[in-house]
Amino acid sequence: MAEAVKLVTDENSFAIRLNGKEVIKHSTENPFLYIGKGTESVDMYRGNFQIDDYVTERTPLKLVSVEKTEAGLDASFSDGHEEVLTLQVLKKEDRVQITFNCKRNHNRIWVRLQSSAEEKVYGGGEQLSYFNMKGQNFPLWTSEPGVGRNKNTYTTWQADVKDKAGGDYYNTNYPQPTFVSSDKYIAHMNTIAYADFDFSNDDFHELHCWEIPESIELIAGDTYAELLRKIKERFGTQPELPDWTYNGIWLGIQGGTDVVERKLQKAERHGIKVGGVWCQDWQGKRVTSFGKRLMWNWIWNEEMYPGLDKKIWEWKEKGIRFLGYINPYVAVEGHLFKEAEEQNYLAKQKDGSTYVVDFGEFYCGVVDFTNPEATEWYKTVIKENLIDFGLDGWMADFGEYLPTDVVLHNEASAMKEHNAWPVRWGEVNRDAIHEAGKQDEIVYFMRAGYTGIQEACPLLWGGDQSVIWEKDDGLASVIPAALSSGMSGCGLHHSDIGGYTSLHGNKREKELLLRWVEMAAFTPVMRTHEGNRPDDCFQFDGDEETLDFFGAFTSIYTHLKPYIKSLVKENTEAGLPVQRPLFVHYEEDETAHDIQYQYLFGKDMLVAPVIDKEAETREVYLPEDNWVHVWSEKEFRGGWITVSAPLGEPPVFYRRGSEHEELFQQIAQVKMNGGRSDA
Amino acid sequence: MAEAVKLVTDENSFAIRLNGKEVIKHSTENPFLYIGKGTESVDMYRGNFQIDDYVTERTPLKLVSVEKTEAGLDASFSDGHEEVLTLQVLKKEDRVQITFNCKRNHNRIWVRLQSSAEEKVYGGGEQLSYFNMKGQNFPLWTSEPGVGRNKNTYTTWQADVKDKAGGDYYNTNYPQPTFVSSDKYIAHMNTIAYADFDFSNDDFHELHCWEIPESIELIAGDTYAELLRKIKERFGTQPELPDWTYNGIWLGIQGGTDVVERKLQKAERHGIKVGGVWCQDWQGKRVTSFGKRLMWNWIWNEEMYPGLDKKIWEWKEKGIRFLGYINPYVAVEGHLFKEAEEQNYLAKQKDGSTYVVDFGEFYCGVVDFTNPEATEWYKTVIKENLIDFGLDGWMADFGEYLPTDVVLHNEASAMKEHNAWPVRWGEVNRDAIHEAGKQDEIVYFMRAGYTGIQEACPLLWGGDQSVIWEKDDGLASVIPAALSSGMSGCGLHHSDIGGYTSLHGNKREKELLLRWVEMAAFTPVMRTHEGNRPDDCFQFDGDEETLDFFGAFTSIYTHLKPYIKSLVKENTEAGLPVQRPLFVHYEEDETAHDIQYQYLFGKDMLVAPVIDKEAETREVYLPEDNWVHVWSEKEFRGGWITVSAPLGEPPVFYRRGSEHEELFQQIAQVKMNGGRSDA
Repeated sequence: MAEAVKLVTDENSFAIRLNGKEVIKHSTENPFLYIGKGTESVDMYRGNFQIDDYVTERTPLKLVSVEKTEAGLDASFSDGHEEVLTLQVLKKEDRVQITFNCKRNHNRIWVRLQSSAEEKVYGGGEQLSYFNMKGQNFPLWTSEPGVGRNKNTYTTWQADVKDKAGGDYYNTNYPQPTFVSSDKYIAHMNTIAYADFDFSNDDFHELHCWEIPESIELIAGDTYAELLRKIKERFGTQPELPDWTYNGIWLGIQGGTDVVERKLQKAERHGIKVGGVWCQDWQGKRVTSFGKRLMWNWIWNEEMYPGLDKKIWEWKEKGIRFLGYINPYVAVEGHLFKEAEEQNYLAKQKDGSTYVVDFGEFYCGVVDFTNPEATEWYKTVIKENLIDFGLDGWMADFGEYLPTDVVLHNEASAMKEHNAWPVRWGEVNRDAIHEAGKQDEIVYFMRAGYTGIQEACPLLWGGDQSVIWEKDDGLASVIPAALSSGMSGCGLHHSDIGGYTSLHGNKREKELLLRWVEMAAFTPVMRTHEGNRPDDCFQFDGDEETLDFFGAFTSIYTHLKPYIKSLVKENTEAGLPVQRPLFVHYEEDETAHDIQYQYLFGKDMLVAPVIDKEAETREVYLPEDNWVHVWSEKEFRGGWITVSAPLGEPPVFYRRGSEHEELFQQIAQVKMNGGRSDA
Repeated sequence: MAEAVKLVTDENSFAIRLNGKEVIKHSTENPFLYIGKGTESVDMYRGNFQIDDYVTERTPLKLVSVEKTEAGLDASFSDGHEEVLTLQVLKKEDRVQITFNCKRNHNRIWVRLQSSAEEKVYGGGEQLSYFNMKGQNFPLWTSEPGVGRNKNTYTTWQADVKDKAGGDYYNTNYPQPTFVSSDKYIAHMNTIAYADFDFSNDDFHELHCWEIPESIELIAGDTYAELLRKIKERFGTQPELPDWTYNGIWLGIQGGTDVVERKLQKAERHGIKVGGVWCQDWQGKRVTSFGKRLMWNWIWNEEMYPGLDKKIWEWKEKGIRFLGYINPYVAVEGHLFKEAEEQNYLAKQKDGSTYVVDFGEFYCGVVDFTNPEATEWYKTVIKENLIDFGLDGWMADFGEYLPTDVVLHNEASAMKEHNAWPVRWGEVNRDAIHEAGKQDEIVYFMRAGYTGIQEACPLLWGGDQSVIWEKDDGLASVIPAALSSGMSGCGLHHSDIGGYTSLHGNKREKELLLRWVEMAAFTPVMRTHEGNRPDDCFQFDGDEETLDFFGAFTSIYTHLKPYIKSLVKENTEAGLPVQRPLFVHYEEDETAHDIQYQYLFGKDMLVAPVIDKEAETREVYLPEDNWVHVWSEKEFRGGWITVSAPLGEPPVFYRRGSEHEELFQQIAQVKMNGGRSDA
């Protein structure tokens, strides 16, 4: 077996081999490093960024000297004229760290890793269109993910023309300059600057960054399981979820105390297992042309939720937790904005005035988390207004909007701080909860992320999908989103059941809602969203059949609690995501490497959600094992199969021989018994 | 007054001043030259090119030495390491030529010229969206101009998604690496390679090219008239048009001899002055999903046009010339393809087989004009099948489709030959006509062009506009097209009356046709086109009112013959285009520099076509002079005015004091008398 890491040098070249394969190879003819200068232009409109770069210089570097050292090797490079960069390779048993030291004022770098047409790469944070990233380039910049996300769709075109908001395949709330190669190594770039990982060439990857990064790390492993463990060790891990999260769905309800009460009663009558109610508008709402928006002044809105201070405890008694909503902005009309502005807690304009961001017909200040006092203050807001009030969870929304021209307390460039913002925001939530001693009770979920979000947020959600069937921005897209997040060290992922964005004529159909909930039963957390325009979206209580359907699938979810809990634990302890790519357990299976709309739900279940409208069957790929179809009890053994998949029978299989076999065998029966509680 | 050209040098810098302004300035801090390496990727689909570049190196050059010479100056540049490029500046009284000599294998160059926010630049061949190019970059590559040409329009989006054919503001059949600056100089790059002139920066222009070009020429002048004369002298000129062209409109008719005869009679009854009939389908047609297409085997189709061999002379007797159609491709089904293939006259694939191009449900060979024998053969086809048969003109279509991966007889890269192809194609037509001694009788018109088209084609037409009101691809777009062509040395321009492309639900309305014909009466040539889907397009004989309308405006056109003829002569002799930007005669008028939807028709008329649907008035800018509105005889003096502009009364003015005043005064009356011949 090849050494995990080997450094090879001669006078004019050097190479770094991982598992016997050359990953870095520098020679005079084929330099692995280019540096240069560029000037970016950035235009933000409501979280959608138009980013252009004007590269005025790009120079392949020439090796001046290379020598082996005790730690690894040192190399020096010139631009042909003078020494411009040195690097130190620090070698450990299974990894190398390549540290750069740039001697000139360059602000662009391109680093080439060797590749082949057969190699596949995964991760990059949360990627919604391509799970295997080989073949495309991926700008890594936290932003709105876009509406439509495919320039060939009418949804995207309309979103672009009306709101500059169409996005593209690479737009994501959570990018991360890290990937896992099918050549069994992890590559990570230590930077928060804008980066673009280009996997579009057959024979090399080109990792581009808008600063000379601190370092690049390459970590070898024998198996995907080992690589995932190393990712966990390197980036930290999501803790286990509070036990109550498994008690049922988190119903997204808006409209006030009475509405919640009524809907809970209706849910109960239909046997819907409810773990929580999630009321975004607990702090009030406003109506804009986009749809219903929230008040963004983070305190109980007594007018809208009368008696909530009592109700919240009543519901908790019944096992139903109350979840709310917060984000890192404060609306100009609110008391928090006033307070923050007085205390100098908000990011500023160049002229010293408060920077207000347009969020679509309303304006907000940006809490400046580079100011320790502002951070303390915001934690206090969370502790006093959310935790002390009794909230057991919330959506910690946004994090990806930091404008690149704000003036920050720490005097750092906002162009650089931008990508770090989601983690700063996550940490504010985490630390507030820890300081309140509630880390085992409270859960919050985020869509934005970057390197480090693994420790800063216990649960991701897939962001704002459109309420459509399109692959790049609908039901289907949350599957690669979960898989790529998992390969990036975030194994706990979920999505808005039914999707969120109903714009440009897109309205949520009942069928889409049902297909989404039947998938969500096989994810760590089930949660609905009414959507930005609730009246344009079919809801969980839209009719009796739907209520029963929710009853059935939430019953399956709670039935699977012991299994799901064990998966969440495995994620925390071993870094194995709850929703896993097939290849994690079937390393040698080439087809498994190309599957992005199926997943293993732990080692023992395989889920192939129905992602097409009016589908009655689905093609499913089963890796080599004996798989039992949960609805028919029919057993299949590997390869492509076509299964019947009517509404209510998503293709779900369990692995023959699993220790949970008995639990799985009961799924069909649980579904039959689900629905109406009088069934 | 400043010297026209001045070279300034010291040890580390040099500058070139034109009219006292620094146009080129090199210093260590601000180099004017960058060279590098790139690898392009080109994907052609039916004349629409997706072109991407991967620049791996870009290096600012450092001045090693500069010395004044008798001829001008010599300079040598390094990349910081070694000498990579020398240049010679050859200075003449009013101009400099900068010749490059590259010593390494670089294939990309960026040359910076000094600019200011106030400077304006014009030309660049035929530009349909921006007459003043300052503010945008312009890839210079002959191609289809696109359907819609604006990513914000639904037409463009559909064309992109269905046919990759939407295009953008810079797509044009006729690009040219030449511009005229409002700082009163001409810049031209001697290259046929792909180029991109970037005028998007306030303080510099960046002229980019995918080879190290032979040279750059800078020519100073005192006035626009002088610059236009110098353009004529530098690039050649279009000869005067045959006298018969002024006898009336060229009616685009398809369908065979009888149809032509019937339509001519109808036209005559309505007083339409007809100079020619233009029958594209004289050589047969085919029907595809795009619409009616032609046979592309260049010989009289007797079946479709029985008796044409006699009729053609009969019509000529009556003063009606017959025009046909040809392009540089031969359809695989035809006898010409067979003949050419046998003789090795067609461009080839790498494997030696004939390269066939997909033109949309039919396939053609590319006549290889780099093969002198093939060129001779094609001239013979033109002489025998077109000229000897009696044609007095034709559309010499295409020229912009040369695929970049064909193998040519001269072994040159098709990537380079691509831009040269329109001129090669023009020359085949020109030389065939000259060899037949018919240069005073025959006219052909082209849409494709490049540097040199001025001498290779006597008349441009604006290409295939959509039958719509959109600014970037409809009626309006042919005005900047004519103006920019004029600033590039092609002062004879016209367009398909009514537009051509009716796809994606666009159908030609009567109103559009009428607005187009009322504009065309004030251009060098009037010609209709039935469109790609004649049944979706309102035609000149669509109703009685329209026939009368054509009668009226063709009468105005023939009435203006002496004036128009004098303008055409002026174009040929002095390089002053027939349709002129206002600033050519009003140099000091700043507003005139921003007008792109009006033009001077010669010095003495000002035309402001109605370009908006259902408009009843139009805002018109009149430069400082006394202007008489031809329909009302009202006199205006300079500035912005609003004039009534109902159908049939396009805003047209003549200059008080013109020597043609009497002719102009009769226009309204001529229109009244026009229409029905019995009027």
